[in-house]
Amino acid sequence: MNTLDAEKGRTLLVVGSVALDTVITPFGEGKDMLGGSAVYFALAASFYVPVQMVGVVGEDFPDSHVELLKSKGVDLEGLQRRKGNTFRWGGEYGYDLNQRDTLFTELNVFETFRPELPDAYRNTPCIFLGNIDPELQSLVLDQVGEPAFVAGDTMNFWIDLNPEKLMEVISRLDVLLLNDSEVRQMSGEPNMIKAARSLLERGARGLIVKKGEHGAMMLLPDECFFAPAYPLELVIDPTGAGDSFAGGFMGYLARCDVIGPSEIRTAVIHGSVVSSFCVEAFGVKRLAELTLEEIEGRAVEFKKMTMFDFHPAKGRRSD
Amino acid sequence: MNTLDAEKGRTLLVVGSVALDTVITPFGEGKDMLGGSAVYFALAASFYVPVQMVGVVGEDFPDSHVELLKSKGVDLEGLQRRKGNTFRWGGEYGYDLNQRDTLFTELNVFETFRPELPDAYRNTPCIFLGNIDPELQSLVLDQVGEPAFVAGDTMNFWIDLNPEKLMEVISRLDVLLLNDSEVRQMSGEPNMIKAARSLLERGARGLIVKKGEHGAMMLLPDECFFAPAYPLELVIDPTGAGDSFAGGFMGYLARCDVIGPSEIRTAVIHGSVVSSFCVEAFGVKRLAELTLEEIEGRAVEFKKMTMFDFHPAKGRRSD
Repeated sequence: MNTLDAEKGRTLLVVGSVALDTVITPFGEGKDMLGGSAVYFALAASFYVPVQMVGVVGEDFPDSHVELLKSKGVDLEGLQRRKGNTFRWGGEYGYDLNQRDTLFTELNVFETFRPELPDAYRNTPCIFLGNIDPELQSLVLDQVGEPAFVAGDTMNFWIDLNPEKLMEVISRLDVLLLNDSEVRQMSGEPNMIKAARSLLERGARGLIVKKGEHGAMMLLPDECFFAPAYPLELVIDPTGAGDSFAGGFMGYLARCDVIGPSEIRTAVIHGSVVSSFCVEAFGVKRLAELTLEEIEGRAVEFKKMTMFDFHPAKGRRSD
Repeated sequence: MNTLDAEKGRTLLVVGSVALDTVITPFGEGKDMLGGSAVYFALAASFYVPVQMVGVVGEDFPDSHVELLKSKGVDLEGLQRRKGNTFRWGGEYGYDLNQRDTLFTELNVFETFRPELPDAYRNTPCIFLGNIDPELQSLVLDQVGEPAFVAGDTMNFWIDLNPEKLMEVISRLDVLLLNDSEVRQMSGEPNMIKAARSLLERGARGLIVKKGEHGAMMLLPDECFFAPAYPLELVIDPTGAGDSFAGGFMGYLARCDVIGPSEIRTAVIHGSVVSSFCVEAFGVKRLAELTLEEIEGRAVEFKKMTMFDFHPAKGRRSD
């Protein structure tokens, strides 16, 4: 059990990319939309607690995006503004929205990004390390005191490039969030359960596997938990699904008094819920207009979708 | 709600194939093993109620197989023995145990099989139509009174060959069991939720979608339920997974006093549980030595794997 000290304040720190995204799906396209892992995370978590954001943007980053984030209570003291252009990413999805092609990646000011935490961020109790170079994730943890709960994300690129450094960071996390293909890639094991367990054996303290339309699985040393995905009939834009999952997950935890296995289960449900809203519209549009009441309503639906009773009945053989 | 009249007896009728299976997996192989949809179903359901089996075997069907089924309380009055050889099937699985190649299919006596129900079977309250020609499934329903609950299975072959006849049979079922690719095939719709709903619109009254390692989904007109798969680290032989799911599912229902949405949910869990045992060994080996206590133990684990609480916490915005 990790205890959260309410006197330190209910805040949540995120480090990650801030981007201008171009997205093409069969249902439309958007150019230079507000995006990036830290942005999706912060908007998703903003329903629960104030979020402190560490990232970098260029001179071209529109004021309207800054205003949107501020209006959601996102603290931007840690957002660096540098000479040059903001990180840009372009992606295209086909009708199978589980697969995407990257059209372009322009790192721009993100290429030389080094996270620097304002003093006010150094005692924040909950921290999320978005998908950036494990060296930089490590650098963030070196700048903080003793956080109550730290989670992090990564991607196939870092798993290939620097697996040792990555495992070193992972061992400093309470929970690592990965998607199913990343778990298989990191472990070299096709069976998902074996793959996940092998990561625990190698030093991960907790694992959440995001399985897209198949929901999410949580694995702690003595716990296993499965949550279905919300049964969406229409996914408009899957961009940010993983980061908004992380935002709902960490946001929920950041407002708990203690964080134990039971709280982590409920947080997985909140992650699934927020993520299910995120993909219903282009970019951050749905997150920007979402309410906590909508989130809680869908969380209740999740409960109904997974509940079952044991009915008294006798087996033939023991009759 | 379908009411089961205990005075009619707690029995369950299955019609399907009885086979001698040859199976090759990366973990070994077995030749001419006891198999077939009706056999896997009957063994799986035998933990709950006595099962009446309708099928056909040839002169070569070993007495030891007959003895095994009888020892599990399976009533074989409806098992025809014909001149010729028993239906034989051969299949091979690679390391991805979700994919299999059929090596051979020798229909033999199964080619001219026509189900004929002994008088004692005609008022059985619960019926399962295994994966056979929809014409024959229909013929079975023509021979019975007013069963309390009927479920059925099918496969890609019948979906292609005779979709009209198949839909006619489906409209006579309380629940249709399909795997996810079959649901997509029948509906022509890639989104699983839309696909499943479209089958309900076309006349299915209830649907259970078996998703292998991703668990199962139940869809009734006003209900949606998700169950995870039991997290198996080693699958030895996936043959019979679907039929043993159906057996656990129907077996559980057959011993209830009423069958409503809540009982169907629990039955899905029992289906998942029995199926998870089935694949742990070659052929019917694991089912043959399974106990009701083991089934109930794993059902409790399913409950633990899906449970979550709502913890009291206030959202920032409403604080």
